[in-house]
Amino acid sequence: MSMHDLIRQLREPSKTKIVLLVADGLGGLPIEPGGKTELETAKTPNLDALASEGTVGLSTPVAPGITPGSGPGHLGLFGYDPLKHDIGRGVLEALGIGVEVGPKDVAIRGNFCTIDAEGRVTDRRAGRIPTEVCEKLVAKLRGAVKIDGVETLVEPVREYRLVVRFRGEGLGENVCDTDPLSTGLHTLEPKAGDAASEKTARVAAEFLRQAKAILKDESPANFLMLRGFANFPKISTMEDVYGIKPVAIAVYPMYRGLARLVGMTVVEPGKTLADQVEVARENWSQYDFFFIHYKYTDSTGEDGDFARKVAVIEDLDAQIPKLRALNPDVLIVTGDHSTPSRMKSHSFHPVPTLLWAPATVRPDLVTTFGERPALQGGLGQFLAKDLLPLALAHAGRLQKFGA
Amino acid sequence: MSMHDLIRQLREPSKTKIVLLVADGLGGLPIEPGGKTELETAKTPNLDALASEGTVGLSTPVAPGITPGSGPGHLGLFGYDPLKHDIGRGVLEALGIGVEVGPKDVAIRGNFCTIDAEGRVTDRRAGRIPTEVCEKLVAKLRGAVKIDGVETLVEPVREYRLVVRFRGEGLGENVCDTDPLSTGLHTLEPKAGDAASEKTARVAAEFLRQAKAILKDESPANFLMLRGFANFPKISTMEDVYGIKPVAIAVYPMYRGLARLVGMTVVEPGKTLADQVEVARENWSQYDFFFIHYKYTDSTGEDGDFARKVAVIEDLDAQIPKLRALNPDVLIVTGDHSTPSRMKSHSFHPVPTLLWAPATVRPDLVTTFGERPALQGGLGQFLAKDLLPLALAHAGRLQKFGA
Repeated sequence: MSMHDLIRQLREPSKTKIVLLVADGLGGLPIEPGGKTELETAKTPNLDALASEGTVGLSTPVAPGITPGSGPGHLGLFGYDPLKHDIGRGVLEALGIGVEVGPKDVAIRGNFCTIDAEGRVTDRRAGRIPTEVCEKLVAKLRGAVKIDGVETLVEPVREYRLVVRFRGEGLGENVCDTDPLSTGLHTLEPKAGDAASEKTARVAAEFLRQAKAILKDESPANFLMLRGFANFPKISTMEDVYGIKPVAIAVYPMYRGLARLVGMTVVEPGKTLADQVEVARENWSQYDFFFIHYKYTDSTGEDGDFARKVAVIEDLDAQIPKLRALNPDVLIVTGDHSTPSRMKSHSFHPVPTLLWAPATVRPDLVTTFGERPALQGGLGQFLAKDLLPLALAHAGRLQKFGA
Repeated sequence: MSMHDLIRQLREPSKTKIVLLVADGLGGLPIEPGGKTELETAKTPNLDALASEGTVGLSTPVAPGITPGSGPGHLGLFGYDPLKHDIGRGVLEALGIGVEVGPKDVAIRGNFCTIDAEGRVTDRRAGRIPTEVCEKLVAKLRGAVKIDGVETLVEPVREYRLVVRFRGEGLGENVCDTDPLSTGLHTLEPKAGDAASEKTARVAAEFLRQAKAILKDESPANFLMLRGFANFPKISTMEDVYGIKPVAIAVYPMYRGLARLVGMTVVEPGKTLADQVEVARENWSQYDFFFIHYKYTDSTGEDGDFARKVAVIEDLDAQIPKLRALNPDVLIVTGDHSTPSRMKSHSFHPVPTLLWAPATVRPDLVTTFGERPALQGGLGQFLAKDLLPLALAHAGRLQKFGA
């Protein structure tokens, strides 16, 4: 029996509230041998109090050694095995810029490129045109492209990148990329890999035909290529699996989109973490599960800015009292992956995690929140996908299994 | 998606170097209540330095409570789930004496035995004849047996034991043992369990017919029995799965054979661990992954010689500086299983493991290498098969999963 089926059997209604505060990229590394990590360096009296009263451990987002992107990282925390639920590239790109994707859609990443008179690609990134040019070209396409039987959406991403979304009946995702992957070659035709994707391939070919005509006098971006065709993934909602009403309070489009994929309601978050906590308060009676996303632990890590990452962790710590004041039954603070400022990138290192649940927690001996203290904690080292069932248990939302 | 498929997707080329130093049977037990294990007793300043700068933990070779033989123990460390890849007895016996086994082979364990005038087995081990007699009889068989359509190899093992290898087309492994398992019974015919193994059964029957004639005047070893028919296992190579060029530097045939099974190049190792490290140095530019096998932690454990096991651990420690001088990106020291001298045998106890990777390791608080300190380490307790992906991650050889 799968864990999801087991939980469907065991879940029971409750009025308890769970808060999942995701500090994106929370885990880190010391800069100097023998030094402290960002989280260990930060002054976090409120997180330390939660760690002390609660229990801590380390979350492995996907599997040992695997560095996750935001998609797999969050799916794990939402209680889904990231190895079983692959979110296609096109869908993630669309979510990342706030383009909604639904069950009738195929979402595709696009690149503006440069072709010569014979149609051969001379620059796969069209000289990395600035975002303003991308926006202008997208606007031009938007005004002119017209394809029967589907609704077409084109949105700029950044520089030479854009997103294309087709909406209609029978649009499979199994279509090959049109990027030939090196210059000097013609772009490829969008070929269907199965019968269910034939219509998508025809629609994409027509889109490219029209785009070529529209862009022909532009320079350097006189054509585009499509890749990462992806349908909305078939994922059961959190309500269906876990029997909870979840809400997402996230500022950045990517995380709002990921939350929508698993059926969360997405509400307006305000701008700061303080705003997000206030939004949680306002919506407290209407939901069971509050996903609050905090981006800056990741972006400062990506920037390689150790001191700034320490500072934004301290900013997060300052909001904890307001979260506690809501009296959640379970409060979890974790990350979707590590982003050590030393590496300036996501990493595979396990993520420090704390679970605070006054009614049911078995405290451990740890009194501070940090990577090394977490090694001694009651949660041990665990897979991210196992955290949500544990949260439900602490929230009194799972019956006994078997007699 | 399987971990192997995931890694095939994510792996990327790199110039980084990984060293896997396997101290066979490394884990131990205290002799006295409250005492130290062999590793904890040994003076190991160099291993302690690695543990201090790196991270430690405990490896479970197959699953909790399972005592592995050398085959499953090493497969795990090579990144293969030992429960999914069974290596047949005949193949392991052949590898153990340095007989090569390939895709067209069926390898079989043989026993010399004694039969009476009616062909009933009177001694299943032929009075445990000395190895010299075994060698003589094998030479006699070798000179006389001739079977059309297959190449036959016979090699002595020890006392009454030998290995038979048939090489040819269409030799399945599903053939029953011919040992009746008690005296007073006739040996069994080698019967095929499926169509693909019919030829093997016929070849084995003919081999036994000729052997009976050749041995009929010998005493006490006047016949032999065959068991453990096994083909070369279908295992993807480490290069195919992990994208690395691995080399094995192992003195004993069994470990050279196991390395060959997963596609490692096997080079001449010299005689001592110092020689092996020197061989690694000489081959440094040609490979990515260096498997160095050290036998004596196991053999001293099997002998029940606590003090000697301590001494050979100290010998190993003395070679660590030369390994470090090679500047590997990742250096792992572990064992394929525990062999506590108190038990004089392999055991199921988790194996102390250290991972040193200066660029990426997240240090823990542990400063010495030993079973009890390892419980506090950052690697936690893990399955051996998860160690290689982690090593690849530390070596910068795995891309991000998902966006």
